[in-house]
Amino acid sequence: MSEKFFSERNLKFLLYEVFDVVALTGYDYYQTHNRKMFDMVLDAATKLAKDLLWPSFAEMDRNPPELANGQVKVHPMVGKMMKEFGEGGWITSRVPFDLDGEQLPHLVADACEFIFQAANYSANAYPGLTVGAAHLIESFGSKDLYDTFVPNMYAGKWQGTMALTEPEAGSSLSDITTAAEPTDEDHYLIKGQKIFISAGDHDGVENVVHLMLAKIKGAPAGVKGISLFIVPKKRFDRNGRLVSNDIITSGVYHKLGYRGCPIVQLSIGDHNDCRGWLVGEPHNGLKYMFQMMNEFRIGVGLGAISIATAAYYASLEYAISRRQGRKISQKDPTLPQLPIIEHADVKRMLLFQRAIAEGSLSLIMQCSKYVDMQKALPEKEQEKYHLLLEILTPVAKSYPSEMGIASISQGLQCFGGSGYCDDYPLEQYYRDARIHPIHEGTTGIQAMDLLGRKVIMKNGRAFMLYLAEVMETISRAREFGTLEGLAQELDDALVKLQEVTQHLLKIAQKQGPEHFLADATLYLEFFGIIAIAWQWILQGIAIQTALTNECSKTDFNFYQGKMFTLRYFFGYELPKTEGLAKRLMSGDGLTVEMENKFFND
Amino acid sequence: MSEKFFSERNLKFLLYEVFDVVALTGYDYYQTHNRKMFDMVLDAATKLAKDLLWPSFAEMDRNPPELANGQVKVHPMVGKMMKEFGEGGWITSRVPFDLDGEQLPHLVADACEFIFQAANYSANAYPGLTVGAAHLIESFGSKDLYDTFVPNMYAGKWQGTMALTEPEAGSSLSDITTAAEPTDEDHYLIKGQKIFISAGDHDGVENVVHLMLAKIKGAPAGVKGISLFIVPKKRFDRNGRLVSNDIITSGVYHKLGYRGCPIVQLSIGDHNDCRGWLVGEPHNGLKYMFQMMNEFRIGVGLGAISIATAAYYASLEYAISRRQGRKISQKDPTLPQLPIIEHADVKRMLLFQRAIAEGSLSLIMQCSKYVDMQKALPEKEQEKYHLLLEILTPVAKSYPSEMGIASISQGLQCFGGSGYCDDYPLEQYYRDARIHPIHEGTTGIQAMDLLGRKVIMKNGRAFMLYLAEVMETISRAREFGTLEGLAQELDDALVKLQEVTQHLLKIAQKQGPEHFLADATLYLEFFGIIAIAWQWILQGIAIQTALTNECSKTDFNFYQGKMFTLRYFFGYELPKTEGLAKRLMSGDGLTVEMENKFFND
Repeated sequence: MSEKFFSERNLKFLLYEVFDVVALTGYDYYQTHNRKMFDMVLDAATKLAKDLLWPSFAEMDRNPPELANGQVKVHPMVGKMMKEFGEGGWITSRVPFDLDGEQLPHLVADACEFIFQAANYSANAYPGLTVGAAHLIESFGSKDLYDTFVPNMYAGKWQGTMALTEPEAGSSLSDITTAAEPTDEDHYLIKGQKIFISAGDHDGVENVVHLMLAKIKGAPAGVKGISLFIVPKKRFDRNGRLVSNDIITSGVYHKLGYRGCPIVQLSIGDHNDCRGWLVGEPHNGLKYMFQMMNEFRIGVGLGAISIATAAYYASLEYAISRRQGRKISQKDPTLPQLPIIEHADVKRMLLFQRAIAEGSLSLIMQCSKYVDMQKALPEKEQEKYHLLLEILTPVAKSYPSEMGIASISQGLQCFGGSGYCDDYPLEQYYRDARIHPIHEGTTGIQAMDLLGRKVIMKNGRAFMLYLAEVMETISRAREFGTLEGLAQELDDALVKLQEVTQHLLKIAQKQGPEHFLADATLYLEFFGIIAIAWQWILQGIAIQTALTNECSKTDFNFYQGKMFTLRYFFGYELPKTEGLAKRLMSGDGLTVEMENKFFND
Repeated sequence: MSEKFFSERNLKFLLYEVFDVVALTGYDYYQTHNRKMFDMVLDAATKLAKDLLWPSFAEMDRNPPELANGQVKVHPMVGKMMKEFGEGGWITSRVPFDLDGEQLPHLVADACEFIFQAANYSANAYPGLTVGAAHLIESFGSKDLYDTFVPNMYAGKWQGTMALTEPEAGSSLSDITTAAEPTDEDHYLIKGQKIFISAGDHDGVENVVHLMLAKIKGAPAGVKGISLFIVPKKRFDRNGRLVSNDIITSGVYHKLGYRGCPIVQLSIGDHNDCRGWLVGEPHNGLKYMFQMMNEFRIGVGLGAISIATAAYYASLEYAISRRQGRKISQKDPTLPQLPIIEHADVKRMLLFQRAIAEGSLSLIMQCSKYVDMQKALPEKEQEKYHLLLEILTPVAKSYPSEMGIASISQGLQCFGGSGYCDDYPLEQYYRDARIHPIHEGTTGIQAMDLLGRKVIMKNGRAFMLYLAEVMETISRAREFGTLEGLAQELDDALVKLQEVTQHLLKIAQKQGPEHFLADATLYLEFFGIIAIAWQWILQGIAIQTALTNECSKTDFNFYQGKMFTLRYFFGYELPKTEGLAKRLMSGDGLTVEMENKFFND
């Protein structure tokens, strides 16, 4: 197995050279931190990833969770990890000091999560889900609820989950039927079925806390009638002992990948004795849930690109060590074979992977920085970053998810037949990564969110703010001779993005929402390629800035490699916008007009 | 599980309406056949696929082959199938009458193989490999060798394989080291290691016949020293009893998919007692092997598109039955949910799958027809079809393989979370199909074959013949008003293909083969998209011809669906050539110039 699953050098390049995380310490909220501490945190995360998570990567896949006697059994590492993550402060890394957290910038906390996920995606899901669920209670729950549930979650003793999906309500959340009946006490009685609940039950913790969507009896139909509840697997009885809360794990799914983490089916309140506690106001559940959902969506993008990064380094290592064939210009069969990295087509596959992985990671960290700016700035200055996050969330979720799969597939291809066998990790990466375009809202859902909501929200203000960010990068890039031509290409692409967007808005007016959104998925792809091109130019500025100073041979090679990767993205990926723009400008309504009966044959 | 895994209607459309297989019966070689017989053969294949192959599809995946006591054990269906395929004449469907075959047109035999592979890809590999191996002996082996091995193979009693790959010689076949030492008898002594041998050992047959590449001691280095041998697992002793031939199955691979068929590692001649019989002349092995290889390469394309077809019908069935969400323009949550096929984005995913599957199948059948024309025509008229097959083979192998994966992935996406779980077949299709861009020459190898050999062979004669075929289709299409605009788009693309090709040939002259072939994979993709567009126009002509006559409501809907799919391909897929052409015209040598050390970080 490969020894390297991420690049510390590239991570620090992004943190310190591109996004200047140290500058955040100039704001009150982050003033107690400094670079030395960030480095220590990254080192500690790397050690934890290498010592605890990485060694179980394949093992957890080969021994997936099992349901026995109503209890899901998981790999023993999970319990150990939850304890270590709790004690080590990894679950509370983003939590404010006054709630006993580490108050780290998201840039740094997300970098750590990147390391964890690259080492073992399934493993990180357990603490990752707990972070999100606890944060939701912290944000919208009462002090009582906080005290009852959150400290145990932050300590890694209790698992957090997000329980939305039901058999008849997946992408269409408005159709959930899980019912909440008020009682005379402080709780509701919950009854229903939930499916596809990640980490929804396991024996690595003493309790599981579901953040669950349900409808209070008599609530309005649709999304306006959805409330958010805390529904634990076990609740305290009068004597403070944990007792069953009438939730049965009725099944565990057998999945293509992501097998180290159970996804379960829950039967809730079969004996009318499942208690749930309302979070915040009734009927506001979806709004609350979307805080967690949005965090998770960027987290999915991060997870996707973590796996793609690990796959890239595995295939790079293989390409360096595997000898096969000779130069095309030198076919003498008596000469020794060359490492396959000498072949241009293999370098192309490696550059593709690197361009996707490092470009996507940059976009995710751009989002992390916006979150940090929101936290660091006074309320009236936060809106800009809030809106930038709103418009970039579907992109940061989908581009890494979709292109991560393509990237991993190329990594597998570098291995030839060995990539198809489980002697090497590529086949697992290939399986694991396929979840990302599905969970936390499919790519199609993200596309409708981007074009149907985010681009037009507040009269296009989020979109305008985004364009201004990219334009600011372009104008900075023009100061460097080596970037001038590339900056112009990005500028041209940005003009095309505006043209396409305006064209689609006209379709919306003339032909209505069906036609407007018919090719939303292509628009998302189009938007995503340009966003990654932007991030590469941003990296280009940092590279060129570094190269104006003297640097070590090692650094020089690193920056050269980055420049080739940047050029690769502009040479091979950005041109894909040509065909997409052509399609998006056509507006022939083909998929709207295709009738169901024409699928019969 | 889905009930439908292919469309009989579409298959007959291609056979009778597009490629007019009945016209072949006008030639002497196929004169004894007629449509009624073709229909009977297709019906019998369908019945066999439904009754025998399809029911074991998931079971063979869940219970993969195991190596125990030196013997690979496979699913019991395999032995039964080999027997039925042997007795039913399915292994000899393309074999001439005078060798006791059915002498069916390849168009029909390949259609049957399509049905088998769509039902159970792994299962069909066993007879499929036997067909190819036996055909190789038939073509190049002596009468003695034929009599000893082929009848048992055609009877389904003995398995055939293709044994090329070695630990240090995968893509680089010139580096094989398996040795053949002459003896005083009619055989050689063989010694070496072979890996990745499909169906290389199993208990469903009484013997396995390897068509194996080896080097006779003292042979020239490289490909010019490769000979072809028949090396059976068991050989006859003096008493006509089958005894061991000193081949040990040293391992069976654990694979991502394609699990119903074992891929094994062989240790040959450990006790210096493995006998092999030379096929044809010494040192001509690779040339012989390439007959089988070329057949298999088109077969890989067919296999890829068979799986993609089965995946399409499974997702279509799900999209029709699964209710989720409402029209974008109609959000009233009290209305019932709609089948997801009502959503334009789902129709887009289905049309994409259909466009890939039916377009690719058409290209494969175009190749089948060329094979049939070669067989039907006198020798001096065969060259045209031989050259067309030469240039189209890498395309027919790679386009379905690469786009099949993308298509199946969209099929999986239609299922949402269910697509990721093994309650539905999509996750298996997704795993099974990933082998295709790898085996029988990776996509990168196919790309170098296309651009580096086929396009330039015989002063570009194959390429010219191909262009003429497409142009002839374009001029026929212009006669139909509805196809005129699309025919023009294909014409434009064909012009672009010529421009790009000429540009690359200039690069070859100026900068040498490394730069010439650096983006060969992109050229293959570019070439492939245009080839499929051609096939869609060819189908368009058949559709429009049919629509000029009266037709049933069912047929009308079928043709309408085909027209939408054709338009989908031109609207969504053909524009991808824009970005590819842009890249291919750049010639900046980026991947050639990228230095290995720049990958360090």
